[in-house]
Amino acid sequence: MARLLVRCADQPGIVATISNFLYNHGANITALDQHSTDPHSRKPEAETFFMRLEFQLPHSDLPAEVLSRSFQRAVADRYDMQWKISYVADLKKTAIFVSRYDHALLELLWRWSRNELPTQLSMVVSNHPDLEEAVTGFGIPFHHIPVEKGKKEEAEAQMLELLEDQADLIVLARYMQILTSDFVDRYKNRIINIHHSFLPAFVGARPYRQAKTRGVKLIGATAHYVTETLDAGPIIEQDVIRVTHRQKVGDLKELGASIERQVLARAVRWHLEDRVIVDENKTVVFV
Amino acid sequence: MARLLVRCADQPGIVATISNFLYNHGANITALDQHSTDPHSRKPEAETFFMRLEFQLPHSDLPAEVLSRSFQRAVADRYDMQWKISYVADLKKTAIFVSRYDHALLELLWRWSRNELPTQLSMVVSNHPDLEEAVTGFGIPFHHIPVEKGKKEEAEAQMLELLEDQADLIVLARYMQILTSDFVDRYKNRIINIHHSFLPAFVGARPYRQAKTRGVKLIGATAHYVTETLDAGPIIEQDVIRVTHRQKVGDLKELGASIERQVLARAVRWHLEDRVIVDENKTVVFV
Amino acid sequence: MARLLVRCADQPGIVATISNFLYNHGANITALDQHSTDPHSRKPEAETFFMRLEFQLPHSDLPAEVLSRSFQRAVADRYDMQWKISYVADLKKTAIFVSRYDHALLELLWRWSRNELPTQLSMVVSNHPDLEEAVTGFGIPFHHIPVEKGKKEEAEAQMLELLEDQADLIVLARYMQILTSDFVDRYKNRIINIHHSFLPAFVGARPYRQAKTRGVKLIGATAHYVTETLDAGPIIEQDVIRVTHRQKVGDLKELGASIERQVLARAVRWHLEDRVIVDENKTVVFV
Amino acid sequence: MARLLVRCADQPGIVATISNFLYNHGANITALDQHSTDPHSRKPEAETFFMRLEFQLPHSDLPAEVLSRSFQRAVADRYDMQWKISYVADLKKTAIFVSRYDHALLELLWRWSRNELPTQLSMVVSNHPDLEEAVTGFGIPFHHIPVEKGKKEEAEAQMLELLEDQADLIVLARYMQILTSDFVDRYKNRIINIHHSFLPAFVGARPYRQAKTRGVKLIGATAHYVTETLDAGPIIEQDVIRVTHRQKVGDLKELGASIERQVLARAVRWHLEDRVIVDENKTVVFV
Repeated sequence: MARLLVRCADQPGIVATISNFLYNHGANITALDQHSTDPHSRKPEAETFFMRLEFQLPHSDLPAEVLSRSFQRAVADRYDMQWKISYVADLKKTAIFVSRYDHALLELLWRWSRNELPTQLSMVVSNHPDLEEAVTGFGIPFHHIPVEKGKKEEAEAQMLELLEDQADLIVLARYMQILTSDFVDRYKNRIINIHHSFLPAFVGARPYRQAKTRGVKLIGATAHYVTETLDAGPIIEQDVIRVTHRQKVGDLKELGASIERQVLARAVRWHLEDRVIVDENKTVVFV
Repeated sequence: MARLLVRCADQPGIVATISNFLYNHGANITALDQHSTDPHSRKPEAETFFMRLEFQLPHSDLPAEVLSRSFQRAVADRYDMQWKISYVADLKKTAIFVSRYDHALLELLWRWSRNELPTQLSMVVSNHPDLEEAVTGFGIPFHHIPVEKGKKEEAEAQMLELLEDQADLIVLARYMQILTSDFVDRYKNRIINIHHSFLPAFVGARPYRQAKTRGVKLIGATAHYVTETLDAGPIIEQDVIRVTHRQKVGDLKELGASIERQVLARAVRWHLEDRVIVDENKTVVFV
Repeated sequence: MARLLVRCADQPGIVATISNFLYNHGANITALDQHSTDPHSRKPEAETFFMRLEFQLPHSDLPAEVLSRSFQRAVADRYDMQWKISYVADLKKTAIFVSRYDHALLELLWRWSRNELPTQLSMVVSNHPDLEEAVTGFGIPFHHIPVEKGKKEEAEAQMLELLEDQADLIVLARYMQILTSDFVDRYKNRIINIHHSFLPAFVGARPYRQAKTRGVKLIGATAHYVTETLDAGPIIEQDVIRVTHRQKVGDLKELGASIERQVLARAVRWHLEDRVIVDENKTVVFV
Repeated sequence: MARLLVRCADQPGIVATISNFLYNHGANITALDQHSTDPHSRKPEAETFFMRLEFQLPHSDLPAEVLSRSFQRAVADRYDMQWKISYVADLKKTAIFVSRYDHALLELLWRWSRNELPTQLSMVVSNHPDLEEAVTGFGIPFHHIPVEKGKKEEAEAQMLELLEDQADLIVLARYMQILTSDFVDRYKNRIINIHHSFLPAFVGARPYRQAKTRGVKLIGATAHYVTETLDAGPIIEQDVIRVTHRQKVGDLKELGASIERQVLARAVRWHLEDRVIVDENKTVVFV
């Protein structure tokens, strides 16, 4: 099974062209979702069109690169598309970054061990040694790379070397270091962070404390792609839970941990299933 | 703007055929959703395929019946489809049935008055006179048709006469009479009821009392198409709200009313927007 | 039935003292809720204690003022309490302020007409004439007080005159004018506003547009007491609803209206039932 | 810190009597919650009163048994109370029963290891050997007790021997065997089961399949005390998650697992914190 993601200026005929192309190559469309930033615009060419298709190539022995080259020529060039075909059998590689809190990490490891995250977990990287045993117990390599003050570049250089060809996706599962913009650039729209508030409320440090101080009646968590601006990248998924005056900051952390786990697991899965397309600072999520 | 709903045995090429047809007739697809009961089945022909398209006919002066006839010949016959094209400009007509509780009715009237329900409200029918003033205040005709014991057929005959050509949809907004199967047959998959529980829990009478007795921690409401079997028709939408040991039956009714209003309003709107396809005793809801 | 709200420095014996007092006066406690900002603090006297009691005076012909004077001497003085006894039979008076959007207003009027809001609705004040008919249809006086540029004080003077003895609570049901701090001071912790975002996200104008721009996956509403600082007063209640990339700003407004209605109705009811105690910039809500 | 749970016929003076007793023994009430089946009943003596108190005995060297004997004489006898004082320092012992599904078990083990479940986990019992390694990795004894056809009594006899003095609570974390009523009687209101539906919908086997067949739009989970009648015991906690026509039975299982984990963890915690009082076939949950 394969998936096609498409993004281009909106215009008539895209669906027909793509579905014809696939039909003529023996592919059977098993799922299709589309979105236009404004389907009723009078200037459709100023709008952006997004599409996600799942298809099967049941009787085809068509090599992937031939299909791709053919798609480029017959379809993509014509509509000036950004596009990507990925094959479900080619598992994406994922690296998880973590510091000391284990809840987000363990949720991912556990779901992965149940085949709920379609990925090859290539490594866990941490600036602390604490979680090594928990990680290696799942058969995943654990790399302890401390990030000393003023030596972030050196640490990141080590990380980049390890990540070479080993990470299509990086998940920050409560990794408490800020990555340099150089690092972020190399993995643009491929680093997912879990933030422990319903962004854009409570950006920055200690969001649960901020939430307690403000007296909100809901706390939440946000999974987003990392960009240069802290806590401001495209949001993939969010959720909340009710709280009252009774919960102290520690209780909020505990309740919030449960939301963080779920929100991050959903966002990572959707990314791995090619359901997320970044649209400037927002996301289109086809679920 | 128009909408196409399709249902047929699953098979390759449907999307290509339909999108080509529309493209060749100058139509621009603005939304597309599809579903197969099992896209990865080895016997696709045993599976059912559902599709909903929205399209615009910007420059076309094609008469509706010509488009329909052409679609039948060029597409529908080939795939043995059940299908329907509806035009957004042709408002569906809706009749609301109600007894004494006003909350579900008022929510619909109020949303309709805000243009949130794309329909022509043709009438409200009630077996009680109580809500006449509330209804006529919205400029909607109100018909009081009492249902006396043993004379249900006569009452329904009166209703059917009123409904003739005046109702594409009937909404039971807490209408406390059971319709005869004869009546139900005439409006198959076109009568929406709101039931005040999360079906299939608490079928039958007094669901809030049943909920209190059972000690559930959530109460809910269910909007479903009416079939011959009471409270067993295809579910369109459901929602719930948390309750505790503190709420008495009266409190449950009050909390539940709020859920009933929302669930019914969503279901009615989705029906009016041609988002619901019945699949045996279930629904496919394209939202 | 009566309610007692208490607030004082935390210390041992408060529950015993109060319950003895009530028992000795023939009162039967039917509900009791308490909260301490930190019950396990080593310096309890630095913590604040809050309590809400409901009690019945079944056989008592004790005049309210006698009970109050007695409570002050026997209990309140001893613990240096802030406190209030209110009688369910003495309905609070509520004035609603509104501009042009009717959804929050109508929800309140409608719930009030169903006896779901225990209050005497004394008036609706609006800076626009549009909603007069809707309001007077419920038998409530409607006052149109335009707020012209640079003449806010004059307008507020008119309002204050109308409100004299007629408002224990003011509800801003989408009232689009900012009240002067002078006005706010006079009704401290007695003005409830509904803000159309999950504060503190999206303070200020056009929160739905802000939400769309930021690409959040949840939109919400917040009911809070009005203070001098815009959108920063103590939060009483919040709720959210899921949205996706598909909803435009107009859709967010429509979905959000439904949340606004529910959140405001809950907050107003809780205030009227003496369930809310303000604690600096937060609330204790006993539900 | 200690907790007092009380249950008796409703009558005036209970709060005063208990709070005086505690005050006179130097105890400081840090939390108090109460409930009456009908506080406004004209026959209060026919209603049931429930109360939960948390209190501290800061300067007291009063032995537990002296306090208890004194409470019995001074308070409980007078009101004919059922009551229990438990000390937070005396951890309850919990045994978990499981079959092959690991999600509910692992959630409990993981929360316990984070100190989120205040209990001494004495053992895990399973009718299958599969989860031994996962359990012993947490340092918990694992007992494999197969339940062969027709030999359930023998198996339960083995279990009962192991449980002797080792279990104040038994949690069925997807244990697929039905316990005999003899076994259930011995641990009345001390066996918590997680059922994978929002009971009373879909009692019995394969609830996710039943849910798919019925076409519900919400699936849920229910934690309840086990009684002789299958799936009919007092409900402690429930929650739901939205689903659509797209999810197959396998997807429902996966989504549902997440709800099961949360609902069971909450119910177990509330039980361990003495927050749940059984009232016939319902529960009063003080949270």
